[in-house]
Order: sequence, then structure tokens, then C-alpha cells
Amino acid sequence: MKQAIELHKDEMLKELIEFLRIPSISALTEHKGDVRTGANWVAESLKGIGMEHVEVIETDGHPIVYGDWLHAADKPTILIYGHYDVQPADPLDLWETPPFDPVIRDDKIFARGATDDKGQVFLHIKAVELLMKEHGTLPVNVKFCIEGEEEVASPNLVPFIEQNEEKLANDAVVISDTSFIEKGLPAICTSLRGALAMELQVKTANSDLHSGTYGGGVPNSIHALVQLLDSMRHENGQVAVEGFYNGVPEVTEALREEVSKVPFDEEKVKKDLELDALYGEEGFSFNERVGIRPTLEINGITGGFQGEGLKTIVPKEASAKISCRLVGEQDPNKVYDAILQHIEKHQPTGTNVSLEKFIQANPVAIDSSDEMIQTAADAYEHVYGVRPLFPKEGGSIPIVEVFGRVLNSPVVLMGFGLPSENLHAPNEHFHLENFEKGIETIADYMVRLGK
Amino acid sequence: MKQAIELHKDEMLKELIEFLRIPSISALTEHKGDVRTGANWVAESLKGIGMEHVEVIETDGHPIVYGDWLHAADKPTILIYGHYDVQPADPLDLWETPPFDPVIRDDKIFARGATDDKGQVFLHIKAVELLMKEHGTLPVNVKFCIEGEEEVASPNLVPFIEQNEEKLANDAVVISDTSFIEKGLPAICTSLRGALAMELQVKTANSDLHSGTYGGGVPNSIHALVQLLDSMRHENGQVAVEGFYNGVPEVTEALREEVSKVPFDEEKVKKDLELDALYGEEGFSFNERVGIRPTLEINGITGGFQGEGLKTIVPKEASAKISCRLVGEQDPNKVYDAILQHIEKHQPTGTNVSLEKFIQANPVAIDSSDEMIQTAADAYEHVYGVRPLFPKEGGSIPIVEVFGRVLNSPVVLMGFGLPSENLHAPNEHFHLENFEKGIETIADYMVRLGK
Repeated sequence: MKQAIELHKDEMLKELIEFLRIPSISALTEHKGDVRTGANWVAESLKGIGMEHVEVIETDGHPIVYGDWLHAADKPTILIYGHYDVQPADPLDLWETPPFDPVIRDDKIFARGATDDKGQVFLHIKAVELLMKEHGTLPVNVKFCIEGEEEVASPNLVPFIEQNEEKLANDAVVISDTSFIEKGLPAICTSLRGALAMELQVKTANSDLHSGTYGGGVPNSIHALVQLLDSMRHENGQVAVEGFYNGVPEVTEALREEVSKVPFDEEKVKKDLELDALYGEEGFSFNERVGIRPTLEINGITGGFQGEGLKTIVPKEASAKISCRLVGEQDPNKVYDAILQHIEKHQPTGTNVSLEKFIQANPVAIDSSDEMIQTAADAYEHVYGVRPLFPKEGGSIPIVEVFGRVLNSPVVLMGFGLPSENLHAPNEHFHLENFEKGIETIADYMVRLGK
Repeated sequence: MKQAIELHKDEMLKELIEFLRIPSISALTEHKGDVRTGANWVAESLKGIGMEHVEVIETDGHPIVYGDWLHAADKPTILIYGHYDVQPADPLDLWETPPFDPVIRDDKIFARGATDDKGQVFLHIKAVELLMKEHGTLPVNVKFCIEGEEEVASPNLVPFIEQNEEKLANDAVVISDTSFIEKGLPAICTSLRGALAMELQVKTANSDLHSGTYGGGVPNSIHALVQLLDSMRHENGQVAVEGFYNGVPEVTEALREEVSKVPFDEEKVKKDLELDALYGEEGFSFNERVGIRPTLEINGITGGFQGEGLKTIVPKEASAKISCRLVGEQDPNKVYDAILQHIEKHQPTGTNVSLEKFIQANPVAIDSSDEMIQTAADAYEHVYGVRPLFPKEGGSIPIVEVFGRVLNSPVVLMGFGLPSENLHAPNEHFHLENFEKGIETIADYMVRLGK
């Protein structure tokens, strides 16, 4: 397999570059057509490697691509899930090369989606293709389910899974959309934080007002928004919303010890991010803060005059995008209600406030002792020479919880990204070392499952 | 004079529309050429009405237009000051008709600059023209000084005044850039608040970060900005910056009584602005809050993801535009220092903060008993049938303080705007009633001064 990968590397990278060239940004309406192009690209690719029943399935949003190969009698069936949609690319001016003009430099491929998740989906397609080429058959039954709405929280995949239990039935869901601990140290993630994303809007007067004529005498929407947002967090980093921490598991000594096993070099992180100091909830370590504690972060804020120079107005409206990461038994619906109540309780005089919910996802925990997961660990160990760790990740892949719950399968989060690969940020990239070893690991995993 | 105005009204409005068509936005670099077009328009207009020594004077920024007529021997000399530059027009989508495509409807003329200040400058040009047409001469000596940087705080007019004391020497500076109390109730403003405008910027990491991977563990620039901004104001509306109120005059019963003479209809203001409630510093009335108390307002805020939908990032930078209105002996330099110290004292962990100063202006007070002002009041009374009030305005015209101090002249703030005319906001307009009566009042004032 290693030789085959070496042999076909250049043509495979050319193909990946084609895939990465498609600006399939699911969050932005103007890219609707590009997202469909992404779906068609995946479907053609699945047909090309011998998948059957390949379909581009319409939904109320962006399409889902399905394809399978089910001729390995008495062998396990894996459902490979991934997504062909990507995050928005702004701020564009911070990209060294354009986000949709993929470039290889320093043994990395740079493009939006390189690591999240097109690059990682591509590993599975190529592993299957090379196995098929080598043996004319596959060691396991394979189903692909590649969606185009992961970056907007999979609103249409959830009902699709619920309505297609039989079609999607499997012995394990395999997903490559997570990261190593660091270069050379693989990881199989066993915990994902839940998510809740919202937009808080404050409106005051029906028009921006002259700050000379009205300043000091009327409510200011930005001041009000700032007051509301600041009231949601204590200066010690704790979330100040009543009821927010309901369902958060107690941080026991055993859990602390488990979390502390994942290496963390504070000085390196500070240096890499050019930060004087880290910051977070008092009483918790960095690993705890990003892995097993919930958060409330402001992701964007806007209001009033945005141009150069100044404009002395009292602004009529302002808004902020807020997202929470949730853990344990925290229920996104209840957290939303708690935040809404907090806002109503603290609503500043003379303002109208609203809180729109964008996405929500339950937290998820996975049993690392499952055989399907331990076999994946064997494959990593074989290829990388080191057994993966089983970290608790801070991110959210909303669909993981749904796969586990609806299809009742173990979910194997065998990621090949690196934490430093700028996912969701400018200059996203993917290491070619993990491109090659990733294909090898996935193929090796399938072979092991087939034994 | 009244008949002459009636006779020439249509052609005068046509000319004003031409003037208003020029997008002379001084704050935006891309309109530099348009600002110069505005200057040339004023210069040609002054030549056309018989002004002499007309010059478009270069500065380090936008030009100043000067012209005079000095043949009224032994009569007083007035210096007419105004500005041909305008505020930015955004948000453009809130204009019912485009800001630089003037339209007359409901006896008002709608355009950016209609009331602030092109429309009002135009009144003086036309008053002089009609007097000249009627008598072949003027009752007083007149100097025009019309600048193009008022909306960015007159950085180049200040040194120009200081270097041209003789050229600009006068018995009164006459400025029409303020408002009536309400329709039919004229005002000569006798107090202007000072101003200080700044931009506060907060930076954290060198890149936006994924809120799943880093959220909760690193400083968030928007959270930090929100925390800083909220710390600057108590919930009761008081500014919380130590030293901010130094130099603010005590609010005596006599001052309270004086301020309360200006009519104020809370229900009407709330209805007009569609506000449930007004808001401001505890313990003060609306008139006090906007007239004799200082303010600190956030005029704009921006940071993180600005697009539709969501993007779960920890943003690397955020900024806010802040402006203060100052009163009494408050010194803009000292207020800036106080805010800077406050920011440094409250600087959140892991952040870099900076505070850039844009403009500053000292507060100013004018003696309403001055003869030049009382004569202006006579002219208003003659034309409008009601004697003007002498309110303390909340706005700032930075140059007023400089005129008074350097040229040692009384400054007559004889405005013809209305507070409801949306200056600095979408759908700015000017009432045609005050267009006609304004020209008449100014001409009458000149005749009275010449007696």
C-alpha cells in the first residue's frame, strides 16, 4: 500500500487540488451553486472508485452524497462520514495565497477545506480506490455519506439519518474530521463538546442620532449591547448566566488526571499565538478549559459607524454573534432559555433585545474500549509507530451524537489533522505527511476489520 | 426683500440642488476630489455675487474658500463662517432617496448636507446676492470663510486663523450651523459642548482561532473590548472613568432653571424616535443631559465575524469608536489621559490595547447680552414674529472656541436648522420655510448692523 501511495501521490494531489478549488461555503447564500458543484464532484469521485448506488440526494438545504459497496459477505460494514462544505474564508487579506487557489509549499497543502474536511474525506476515497486497485475487491463493506452542511450544523442530515436507518446501518461510523495531539502523535477523540450559536441584537431609536443633539439623553444600542454581553461573564472567566452550568459534570481528580495526560506546552502555545498570557475560567487548566468545561464566546460584534475616521452618532442598533461549547448533560435548549432569561432580566432601559438561535448540538462521549476503536488504534500504531491517545476535544461535530444515538453504532473519530493547521482561519492547510500516512492508516484499518 | 426671495426662489433652489449634488465627504479619502469640487463651487458662487479677493486656499487637508467685500466705510465687518464638507452618508440603504440626488418633497429638501451645512451656508450667499441686487451695495463689510474640514474637526482652519488674524479681523463671526428649538421657535445658541473622539483597539492572538479548539482557554478580543467599554460607565449612566468629571461646572439651581426654559416634550421625543424610554445620567433632566453634562458615547464597534450566519472563532481583534462631549472647564487632553489611564488600569489579561485620538475641541460659552447677538435676535423677531431663545446646545463646533479666542470677536450662532432634520443621519433635510425666512433674516440682520 505504501508503494502504491508513493506511486500515485502526484496524481492524487492534483485531484485533491481540484476538489479544494470549489468554494463550497455552506454558510453563504451566494455560494449555493458552488456547494452543489462540491456534491457533484464527490459523487463523480465515488463512481470513479467503484462505489455503487451513488446518489446526490436533495434536501431542504445543500445535498447529501451517498454511495456504497456491499460485496464483502460476512464482513463488517463501515459508514464513512465527512463533509464537502467549508467555512467562510474571510478575512481574505490575511491569506498568503487565495483560499480557493490551492498551493503546495513546505510539504503542506494550503486552501480552505484542506484539513476541514475535504482533505480528510479525500483520504477515505483514495484508501478505498487503492485497495480496490490492488485486490479488485474490498476487505469490508463500505458506505459513504458525505454532507454539505456540517459547517452550518447539519440541519438536514439529522432527519435524513432518522428516515434512513436501514440504508445507513453499519458496524461503525468512521469520521476523519479531528486532529492529532501534535505532529507524529495521533489521537482518536472520545469526547466532543456540544454547541449552541446565537445572535443577540439590540435596537433603540428608529434612526442613528446626532451625538451632539441627543448624546447622553437617549439609550445607545452599543452601550446596551456591551452592558448585556459583559454581564454574561465574570472577570474570572466564569459564565455569569444563572443555570448555565446545570448538567456540567463535576471535575473529579480522576478526570483531571485523565485530561492532564494530553501534553500541553503553555510557552509554545503562547509563542505560536503571540500571546502574552492565556486566559480562561479560574481554577482550571488549559486542557480542562478547552476540553471538559463549557464556554460562552463572542464570535463577532457590529454596530454603528464602521468606516474610517469618526462619525459622532448615537447608533440605533448593534448585534453580536455568540456561541457556547457545552459538556456532559448540558442541554442546548435549556442553555438558550437561560441566556434568554438573563438578557430579559438585564435588559437596559429603552432597548429592544432579541436572541436568535442558529445551531445547537448535544455534547457526546465515546467509550474508547470499543473494539472498533481499538482496531483503529492498532492501524495508527502500525503506520505511525505510536499508539494514539484518546483525548477529549473541545470542538463540536453535531452529527456524531446523532449517529451514535439513531444508528446505535460506535463512532470512530480517526482524525489526521494537526491542531496548528488553521482550521476556520486564514491559511488553512494540511500536512502531506498525514496525507500519505492517512491513506495508509485508513486502508490498514479496513484490512484489519476484514480479518 | 421678501418679494425678491419669492421671485427668485425656484432658481435659487436649483442652484442649491447643484451644490448638494457634490458628495464632499471630508472624512473619506475616496471623496478628496469631490471635496475640492465643493470648494470650487463655493468660490465660483462668491465671485458670482460680487465678492472680491476670492481664493481657494490650499491647506494640508481640504481647501478653505475666502472672499470679501469691504466697501461699507465706517460700517461693521462680519465674518461669515460655514462649511461645504458633509458627513458620510452611510447606512445608504436607509435613505428614501439617494443622499446626493437632492429631492424636494413636503416643502423640504432632502440630501446629505441640506441642513448641515451647505443649505445654511447658501442662505448667506443668497442674502448677500439679493441685497447687492437691490441696492448695488451692502450695508456692512462682509468676509466669507467657508471650510471643507468641519466634519473632521477643522485641523487646518485652526492654524489658518492663527496665521491670518488681520485678514479675518471682524466685529462679529456669524455662523449658521445650529438649530431652532422647534419649528417656528428660533434660537441663538450660547453654549457648545467640547468634543473628544477616539478609537479603542484590542488585539489578542495573531490569528482568529477555532472556538472549539481554543475557546475558553485563550483571551477573546471582543470579550476584552466589551469588558473595557462596560467598565467606563456605571449602569446609572455616570461615566466611571476617574477624573472624567474634573472641570464640569456645578449644576446650580439657577443653571437648572435657565436650562429648563427650553421647551422639551418627552412624550413627543419618545414617539418621534420610537423609544420606550429615554436614558441618561441619573439625577439630571433631558435638557441637562444633552446641554450641560458631559457624555461618553460609543459610536461604532466592530470585531470578529461580520457575515451572515455564524463562524465559531475566537476573534483576534476588535475596536470601538468612542466620543465624548465636554462642558465647562473640561480639558480634552486631560480627559483623553484619564481614559487612557482607565484602560491601562483595567486592561484584561493577555490583550494589547491602544487608544488613538481623532479630534478634540474645547467647550465654549457665549455672552448672550452682546449687542451683535441681540441685533440678530431683533432680526429673527422681525421675520418670525417671535424672539429667539438662547439655548445651550449639546453639539460641538470646534472652531467657535478658536474664533472667539484668537480673533476676540463675539460669535453669533444664528442657525436655521430644525432638530428633526436628521443631521448626521439618513434622510437629512432642510425646511423650505426656513430657506426663505433664513435669507430674509440674514439680510435683515445685515441691514440692522449697517444702521
